[in-house]
Amino acid sequence: MFELKARDGLGRIGLLHTKHGDVETPVLLPVINPNQMIISPQEMKEYFKAKMVITNAYIIYKNEELKKKALESGVHDLLNFQGAIMTDSGTFQSHVYGDVDVDPQEIVEFQRKIGSDMGTILDIFSEVDDDIEKVQEDMKKTIQRASKATEIKGDMALACTVQGGNFPKLRLDCSKELSSLDCEIHPIGGVVPLMEDYRYKEVVNIIIASKRGLLPSRPVHLFGAGHPMFLGLAVLLGCDLFDSASYAKFAKDGRMLFSDGTRKLEEIVELPCSCPICSKHCVDILTEMHKNGDYKAIAMHNLYVTFAEINRIKQAIYEGNLWEYVEKGCRAHPNLLSALKALRHHKKYLERFETISKSSAFFYTGPESMHRPIVYRYEKRFFDRYQHPKTRVQVGFDEGNRPYSRFYKKEIDKILDVCDAHFIVNSVFGPVPIELDEMYPIAQSIIPDELEPETLDRMRRLMERHSHRGLFELAVMYDGDETLQFLTGMGKGGTFDIDMQRVKSVADMQFGSGAADVLIKGEVELVKSKRTGKIRNVISEGKHVLSMRASDGLFTLKEEGARRLHRGFSAPGLRVVVEEDSVQFNREGKNVFAKFVLDCDKELRPMDEALVVDKNDELIAFGRLMMNREEMLAFNRGIAVKIREGFDKKE
Amino acid sequence: MFELKARDGLGRIGLLHTKHGDVETPVLLPVINPNQMIISPQEMKEYFKAKMVITNAYIIYKNEELKKKALESGVHDLLNFQGAIMTDSGTFQSHVYGDVDVDPQEIVEFQRKIGSDMGTILDIFSEVDDDIEKVQEDMKKTIQRASKATEIKGDMALACTVQGGNFPKLRLDCSKELSSLDCEIHPIGGVVPLMEDYRYKEVVNIIIASKRGLLPSRPVHLFGAGHPMFLGLAVLLGCDLFDSASYAKFAKDGRMLFSDGTRKLEEIVELPCSCPICSKHCVDILTEMHKNGDYKAIAMHNLYVTFAEINRIKQAIYEGNLWEYVEKGCRAHPNLLSALKALRHHKKYLERFETISKSSAFFYTGPESMHRPIVYRYEKRFFDRYQHPKTRVQVGFDEGNRPYSRFYKKEIDKILDVCDAHFIVNSVFGPVPIELDEMYPIAQSIIPDELEPETLDRMRRLMERHSHRGLFELAVMYDGDETLQFLTGMGKGGTFDIDMQRVKSVADMQFGSGAADVLIKGEVELVKSKRTGKIRNVISEGKHVLSMRASDGLFTLKEEGARRLHRGFSAPGLRVVVEEDSVQFNREGKNVFAKFVLDCDKELRPMDEALVVDKNDELIAFGRLMMNREEMLAFNRGIAVKIREGFDKKE
Repeated sequence: MFELKARDGLGRIGLLHTKHGDVETPVLLPVINPNQMIISPQEMKEYFKAKMVITNAYIIYKNEELKKKALESGVHDLLNFQGAIMTDSGTFQSHVYGDVDVDPQEIVEFQRKIGSDMGTILDIFSEVDDDIEKVQEDMKKTIQRASKATEIKGDMALACTVQGGNFPKLRLDCSKELSSLDCEIHPIGGVVPLMEDYRYKEVVNIIIASKRGLLPSRPVHLFGAGHPMFLGLAVLLGCDLFDSASYAKFAKDGRMLFSDGTRKLEEIVELPCSCPICSKHCVDILTEMHKNGDYKAIAMHNLYVTFAEINRIKQAIYEGNLWEYVEKGCRAHPNLLSALKALRHHKKYLERFETISKSSAFFYTGPESMHRPIVYRYEKRFFDRYQHPKTRVQVGFDEGNRPYSRFYKKEIDKILDVCDAHFIVNSVFGPVPIELDEMYPIAQSIIPDELEPETLDRMRRLMERHSHRGLFELAVMYDGDETLQFLTGMGKGGTFDIDMQRVKSVADMQFGSGAADVLIKGEVELVKSKRTGKIRNVISEGKHVLSMRASDGLFTLKEEGARRLHRGFSAPGLRVVVEEDSVQFNREGKNVFAKFVLDCDKELRPMDEALVVDKNDELIAFGRLMMNREEMLAFNRGIAVKIREGFDKKE
Repeated sequence: MFELKARDGLGRIGLLHTKHGDVETPVLLPVINPNQMIISPQEMKEYFKAKMVITNAYIIYKNEELKKKALESGVHDLLNFQGAIMTDSGTFQSHVYGDVDVDPQEIVEFQRKIGSDMGTILDIFSEVDDDIEKVQEDMKKTIQRASKATEIKGDMALACTVQGGNFPKLRLDCSKELSSLDCEIHPIGGVVPLMEDYRYKEVVNIIIASKRGLLPSRPVHLFGAGHPMFLGLAVLLGCDLFDSASYAKFAKDGRMLFSDGTRKLEEIVELPCSCPICSKHCVDILTEMHKNGDYKAIAMHNLYVTFAEINRIKQAIYEGNLWEYVEKGCRAHPNLLSALKALRHHKKYLERFETISKSSAFFYTGPESMHRPIVYRYEKRFFDRYQHPKTRVQVGFDEGNRPYSRFYKKEIDKILDVCDAHFIVNSVFGPVPIELDEMYPIAQSIIPDELEPETLDRMRRLMERHSHRGLFELAVMYDGDETLQFLTGMGKGGTFDIDMQRVKSVADMQFGSGAADVLIKGEVELVKSKRTGKIRNVISEGKHVLSMRASDGLFTLKEEGARRLHRGFSAPGLRVVVEEDSVQFNREGKNVFAKFVLDCDKELRPMDEALVVDKNDELIAFGRLMMNREEMLAFNRGIAVKIREGFDKKE
């Protein structure tokens, strides 16, 4: 019922199919209180283009009149809303009041009967201070209830909520158990008390632990987290659905939501907002209205801001700068900054979902940027995959605090004047061999001209680690004019060919160690763009094996390139294995759908070039991945590989 | 014509008096092109509550029809706008087209004749790459023209533009010269090429150099800088007026302004904005309209966003968190981050304008926060003013990476169990003696629980500097259980009285070295709040000398306190000297207006407690400063000191 449309980080634009239409995620579901609709569902649709709302089945169930009406004509008629409706079960009420008076099976059945598009189990809300034994026991009960609920859900999509208190290990266990059940969506429950205490770091750890255990093909709903302040971070970590009751609750208290926090009416002099409410009114009028018990305008503001925040996040996903957006947003509160800093402990996991390149440049926002998965990937691949060329003169630059692009170009020209040298420069990403300087994200980055000691230290550490590998045996560290004089003494006559080296080094970095040897052999011709002078095509032994993309300096595979990689790398390297049913389609150049994928190299990443093989490892096509391994194994919908070319059987 | 209403950093809410009404600053003046009003001035008023616009007198002057109409019925009728109108002179056109065909005197006279509320001289726009000789020559000419313009300005307010190219020293010189002229406002000119190239650091250096030379009583207009991205930083540095032609120019090109940058229509999938335009339309409709030549909606969006940004900044000034707001906003682009980092070189200047305390807490947003003027002030005062108490046991805490509040409380209790000790703890602000822990900003701060090496290094450096002063002769550095055992050996029986020490140390930190000895003597009684246990009043020798504010842990002066400080500190210490005309009013408890101030202690800061004396140094009143020295000497309007109590002559 869920498919991927676009992605950044663990964040994704998804399409949720419901009985009442498709809903794009990330999505905010306004909470409709059937007893008190301050903004009606129709208005939600009219003003905020809401396609989905959430209401509480327990409240309907406990009110004789509402219950009767809902059972007779369904929840959509009750709310007078023909979009998708999710229902909650009373779990949150059990947290607030200590207990609820309803049978866990009955409330699921009730949700089905009233025609909820998505019903929720009655999970046990573990409290933040509960000890591990108590939480474990609750969790067991939640899983049992979830399991029973799957038997009676009928055609209603079922939401099975992850619990596990403040114990990431239990969250992981719970997620794994729930993943094995036949259900459609996983809320993460029990985080409201942490959110209310600004304990964002703990929420982040809970989200990541849950995501690790859940199937990436199922949407995740972060229950009760509708404050615009936290949405960006939650989406970056893979949450897809949010609900907000705050828009109304806060409005009643005279509190206005903003993407940088909450403000009480009496704290506001100038409305810091451009929404239709704030553009029209001044704060005195809103205060007056609130005093008279009319807080609808404030509730409207709260929704305008929250819906706009969702749009801002979606736009950031499309632009490929969700990391930047979140890093900036997390400066709104020191506890958000703490949460952001905690992400560095999860970068190995996060890297698996990070695309190979993005359409927007890498913006440095602070030392936290150096812990993004894309930076971790460069560092790892550089030390694992990069092959140092054997040339006579190697020069290492190590002037930590000046950004590469502006500074080195001049110095490098000076040295190239006296000899053919191979350069390694010290960038914020780590050591960058000069031939990798067009590869994403090296060239596609904007770095401030003054850097924090934390980043400078990291740069020095990586440069040192590199030179300690013994790769600098022949090298001189650049040290101003003295080095230059020494090099002048050595004179010209090296054999360093930067174009050839670029092709080889990028191939190794992109496809893995040894790729260059496999792909580029015999007589090699490099076709360059006449306009930019950049490498376009790589012809080896008369065959077109690779094309280099100007946008990110990475390769697109060509037929012969795919064949060579297939011969040169043994399974499962660089491969996606598809079912027999799919083979003929892919041979004909049609895309690989996730449901036909049997396996995939776990080193491949979204947007990577990959080989498509059948289960006998026969090469049938090649193309570009839309998903990583765990995603294509989990999803039943959507494209796993966009095929560039298929191979005819006969060949 | 300008007065202060509220302040934060060098940012200020001001009131600009014009012939067509009062205008609150910071303010955005939409540029009205008299040839092409895509949004009319009346609409500016209706939709954006604009009270002031700017138009180009040169364009009117060069168009016979417009010129005639303007001379006949005035510029207000020409634009059909009865609010305040500023006019520009053609300088920008000379930058764009190389030259303009108008006499510098004539264009000023023309502006006066058409009834401009604020006319601008025809200054010489120095280009960014001009050499220093050329710029100096241009600057001389600009100053000459300004000087001549003052003679013919009549009742029109005159804007004398600061030039000086990309040379901060020349900007300072030019500002000083212009300050001596009879004019009302100072634009800073010639920064557009830098803004267009994202060279924000250089713009910041130009603004600060200009501000140093200008009178703080005159509003500053940053010419051509209307992008919402840069407004916060510019206001923080003391810019008051902005103009925007971009709203229309960008709209025509299909570009939308946002507070984090500019986006082309074709780059947008989801409109990341809550303004009335974006809430109503989707991007496809805006694109369609733009294709058909209708870009008014986009221009409206651009203005909604920019006006909202001004409101956001004003609200931040009222809240006292403009620094936080700007630090966050500067993560929108690495070059803004560079500009932010450059502020650390100006903190000595910035500190002079920083209030003593604020109503909102200090939020840590990154290592840059440690270069705010308030942090510099704490550090400076601690090392200059703080007197170490003479007690038997002194304990220094130095566990850098844990925030004070959460960690130390428990440890301190352990030690207090075994002896009466005096504590110095290592906070992000530097060493904090335990008795200063309720003083702003120490207690009123929220710090993430993980800190960058840059901040940790700073903390260590300051703690070391402190211990090297020899103040730790008797001290033990806390080192877990071992220290505790050692202290147990020493036993109880110290004489450290934290309440008394708090009163003394805060007095010294707030009023200067020696203040405690002057204020607190003989028998001392401390009256505490029954509810919070915090010190409320300080009674010395039976007289109420000080009250401690619960909000910021600082003192409010009482009559006897003022008398003692006056006797104990010689002039000009802690004093504001007023003219004879003001004396009787102030004795009666009426506020001191800036225009009556003869001099002021240059160590006093806005919101400081101060003594008011006549020119014979007789104490006539005491109160709270609204301005620092240079402001009260410059302003002709507004309150310099809010008097708490005046002293009757007879006493």
